[in-house]
Amino acid sequence: MLPLGSELFAVADRMRAMVAAQGKNDMLRGKILANVFFEASTRTSCSFQAAMLRLGGDVLPLNESGSSAKKGETLGDTIRCLECYADVTVLRHPLVGSAAAAAAAARKPVINAGDGVGEHPTQSLLDLYTIRDELPDHSLAGKTIALVGDLKNGRTVHSLAMLLAKYAVALQFVAPPSLQMPQHVKDEVAAISARHGTAVTFTEHEALAEVGGACDVMYVTRVQKERFATEAEYEAVKGVLVVTPATMAVARPAMALMHPLPRVGEILESVDDDPRAAYFRQMENGLYVRMALLALVMGVEGC
Amino acid sequence: MLPLGSELFAVADRMRAMVAAQGKNDMLRGKILANVFFEASTRTSCSFQAAMLRLGGDVLPLNESGSSAKKGETLGDTIRCLECYADVTVLRHPLVGSAAAAAAAARKPVINAGDGVGEHPTQSLLDLYTIRDELPDHSLAGKTIALVGDLKNGRTVHSLAMLLAKYAVALQFVAPPSLQMPQHVKDEVAAISARHGTAVTFTEHEALAEVGGACDVMYVTRVQKERFATEAEYEAVKGVLVVTPATMAVARPAMALMHPLPRVGEILESVDDDPRAAYFRQMENGLYVRMALLALVMGVEGC
Amino acid sequence: MLPLGSELFAVADRMRAMVAAQGKNDMLRGKILANVFFEASTRTSCSFQAAMLRLGGDVLPLNESGSSAKKGETLGDTIRCLECYADVTVLRHPLVGSAAAAAAAARKPVINAGDGVGEHPTQSLLDLYTIRDELPDHSLAGKTIALVGDLKNGRTVHSLAMLLAKYAVALQFVAPPSLQMPQHVKDEVAAISARHGTAVTFTEHEALAEVGGACDVMYVTRVQKERFATEAEYEAVKGVLVVTPATMAVARPAMALMHPLPRVGEILESVDDDPRAAYFRQMENGLYVRMALLALVMGVEGC
Repeated sequence: MLPLGSELFAVADRMRAMVAAQGKNDMLRGKILANVFFEASTRTSCSFQAAMLRLGGDVLPLNESGSSAKKGETLGDTIRCLECYADVTVLRHPLVGSAAAAAAAARKPVINAGDGVGEHPTQSLLDLYTIRDELPDHSLAGKTIALVGDLKNGRTVHSLAMLLAKYAVALQFVAPPSLQMPQHVKDEVAAISARHGTAVTFTEHEALAEVGGACDVMYVTRVQKERFATEAEYEAVKGVLVVTPATMAVARPAMALMHPLPRVGEILESVDDDPRAAYFRQMENGLYVRMALLALVMGVEGC
Repeated sequence: MLPLGSELFAVADRMRAMVAAQGKNDMLRGKILANVFFEASTRTSCSFQAAMLRLGGDVLPLNESGSSAKKGETLGDTIRCLECYADVTVLRHPLVGSAAAAAAAARKPVINAGDGVGEHPTQSLLDLYTIRDELPDHSLAGKTIALVGDLKNGRTVHSLAMLLAKYAVALQFVAPPSLQMPQHVKDEVAAISARHGTAVTFTEHEALAEVGGACDVMYVTRVQKERFATEAEYEAVKGVLVVTPATMAVARPAMALMHPLPRVGEILESVDDDPRAAYFRQMENGLYVRMALLALVMGVEGC
Repeated sequence: MLPLGSELFAVADRMRAMVAAQGKNDMLRGKILANVFFEASTRTSCSFQAAMLRLGGDVLPLNESGSSAKKGETLGDTIRCLECYADVTVLRHPLVGSAAAAAAAARKPVINAGDGVGEHPTQSLLDLYTIRDELPDHSLAGKTIALVGDLKNGRTVHSLAMLLAKYAVALQFVAPPSLQMPQHVKDEVAAISARHGTAVTFTEHEALAEVGGACDVMYVTRVQKERFATEAEYEAVKGVLVVTPATMAVARPAMALMHPLPRVGEILESVDDDPRAAYFRQMENGLYVRMALLALVMGVEGC
């Protein structure tokens, strides 16, 4: 089983302390980040930009809607050109495998900020960092994690489930019948668990009420209205999957309520002031994890 | 009557001297501004960005056309997410009241950069700062201010008229018959004047020639062609409301000619070299006033 | 004949060394660049932004699709407004002569980053800098330069041909019959050569094979499919104008292969690892030349 206190997370801890104390440092002074987004993702883009700025680096923001790609340039050439000016590239691209292709062409580091339905590794890392941080004993062993919402289409929860399979946890999948966790993800979770000897268990549920009082982490994701055949089906789901103050009233005293955001009604705003509402802290952790990643990737010593 | 030499303006004066001497300082080093524009406003956006950079801070520029708002996220959530990465938010939004709503959701400072037909307070502040700066004795008492152009639809002149009502000035409203100052603004001006005991007077005019030689400040605004029923009506207005060298020939020697810009013919370019043409100084003052505002809002001591 | 080791290039050399050693310096600390692009050009935009950042300056990025220009503002006013916040302007604009018009209105330096089919002077400068740098003896005298591709429509090769006419070179124009170098450019090359006493010669060709083994620099440009009447005509060109490993096998040992990029198949990726493939170095040189230009234009002493 992997230790939760990895080097990345230890560096992220130090980044958090540094930002609180002084806002920024000079670790990446003289370095430029090419922040390349072929599809809009304000939050991830801002998070990486802020991470670079708080390390004393500079940023070239690129929203590649109207550029050389339109002239027929390959992604590899685009990346190789940008690294003539920049020292590291962050890439968000709608095609699966694009980040790997970019990295293969590049001479300098490339960080995957999401490649379509492929991966979004920094999201998974910040999720795991947040879980570690929110759990009172900072250990996943023996914990129960509920994943809630659209488990069928959610890239975020697929990645997270596979990452959690490396730890001795019990997983609870909570989703409408038509949006349950796909079999291939469940198979993958089982395989990873077997490989790591973590004896992960998982159960499936259709309503929050079935798991609400018995989990240590409740990870809620967005349920998009357009995934449903009928309005009635969507309304039914809203009734049993929305987190309300009543949900929190029966939840464990130290439970962490998470959400990758944006939310569209899955968690009522009246829950925001509950100390267990961890989603804005989770969002903020994205900054520290990405700062740590940038510093490590750029080979900063003593970060 | 409010003193014109307010703290904000005193700080703005010092910002101007600092920029002239050294370009930037480190007052806001380590702080990040989220510069969020839900509608395009290049100038205001640039002005805030430059203000932050010249205080040593960094900027996350956000043009929210293609982002989480489209996914149905509330403005409050958008602001709360951004302040996970940034220390202060500047918001331009097409809806009245949006800035107040954002500030209510935020844990960190939010500055209103215009909320639709609501307010655009930093424009009013830079206008007042410029008037104070351009008047030879830096005092509004007893001065005559002409407001010229589309007074019916101009948010800028409405705000400015109400702000000026706090001082003992005479106002001259110069506009085509169909674009005169609305009654509700005139009522508000009268009410504010009564409250502050400033005995503000105002007169209404249809041509610049009626006021041109008798005002200390001439504040011209854009007259949009599409506001007129007929081409002939528009052409008639152009003839009596456009500032030309002839207008300046009869104007007071120390008059200040102002315009919030962009202009589309209301002031001829042949007037630009007249020392009384204050509109580019006015534009530049926007930088110093916004620097002062950012420094004060962020609690910089000794700024 | 102009010396190739001009002041600009000497400064660019020092910029390259500085970037390699420390990433950035503080030469333009406190200065802001308004990077104004009225048409998309990711590379040129990024190059100028990176240049300013590596000199310690700050950048206001402006993509003028949705701004005051739409409200009818003149380019001159736009520039004069921006320089209220910034210290130098870089302008890319689709209209010929726009950069000169902007410079005439401005009180601060304006750098032309391309004005439609007019000029793109920094591209020519980086091309010449790269040629000087790649040639083993850093001298153009007696050298043979092949210009390859769409010579009819390529602004880049027109400017470069006229610039090269100032040196004692032999030019080889290699293009499909319908895309040969226009007569007016050839006339201009002859006139410039006569004026500088450089006895420039030029020959015309239709296939790379005619020049491939006999040039010191091979400058390839993009051939756009839509320039051809028929698919067959386009395919024919591709066969005789594409640089392949076979092209390189017969090329001179010290030849420099250049391309302004983006490429769309004119140079195979299998050529990229050839040490004579200079196009990514050429791209990188754009950074150093633009840094030198910014420093000189801003009057930095001892740069």
